[in-house]
Amino acid sequence: MTQLDRSEALALLASVSLGRIVFTQNALPTVRPVNHVIDRGQIVLRTHAGAALTLQTGRAGNGGVVVAYEADAIDPVTHLGWSVIVTGYARLVDDPEDLARYHAMLEPWVAQTMDHAVRIRPDLVSGFRLTAQPLAG
Amino acid sequence: MTQLDRSEALALLASVSLGRIVFTQNALPTVRPVNHVIDRGQIVLRTHAGAALTLQTGRAGNGGVVVAYEADAIDPVTHLGWSVIVTGYARLVDDPEDLARYHAMLEPWVAQTMDHAVRIRPDLVSGFRLTAQPLAG
Repeated sequence: MTQLDRSEALALLASVSLGRIVFTQNALPTVRPVNHVIDRGQIVLRTHAGAALTLQTGRAGNGGVVVAYEADAIDPVTHLGWSVIVTGYARLVDDPEDLARYHAMLEPWVAQTMDHAVRIRPDLVSGFRLTAQPLAG
Repeated sequence: MTQLDRSEALALLASVSLGRIVFTQNALPTVRPVNHVIDRGQIVLRTHAGAALTLQTGRAGNGGVVVAYEADAIDPVTHLGWSVIVTGYARLVDDPEDLARYHAMLEPWVAQTMDHAVRIRPDLVSGFRLTAQPLAG
């Protein structure tokens, strides 16, 4: 297992479209799979009006709420791959131009109206790569 | 998107070996990819002495700590697949027989001594399947 530096980790995150958003709901940890894009160094997700994340970030206003975001690609047979974990403030996007741009960049995978977007600033970025062990001898 | 019932969701979780454990560390949400087995209806993970999850569950004793556990298989091209999310109490396994059994059942994917095990009781189980949309007409 080798640690990734910030730029490697963010490049791997940008190379995939599926991740998991981790947040606290009613004082309990929770997690949802979502698709994302990276835009200007931030992670962007689309959400709907009733989503817990929309409500939480909406209530928090510009202060945002702390979330974690994780993506990985680990082969279940070889056990090789990588994982990236970001922690940062998530904020509801309220700028209409940004929102329109994200709607054009990011197609939700679920057939549901996704009128909102949440943007995560990657404050802490960590990650690792699982590599084959060198053979002894 | 169709909701899964508890038994379907647990069967899908048992069909894969990789998931993500979600917990709270220093009041912040965090997440780690891990491999698991399902044993007698509980999710079992192996951990090491220095892992945050080992320390937290060790401190919590028999009361356990609330965690979420997520696994998914979503095709990035077709966007079809499933996700299962479990919430429940995680406890450090202290019974030596159980620990020996888990060591035999579950090989860690990381080359690191993994002397401990954590068991999660699935109290809340939810999940969904992303299916192709019916064609109009």
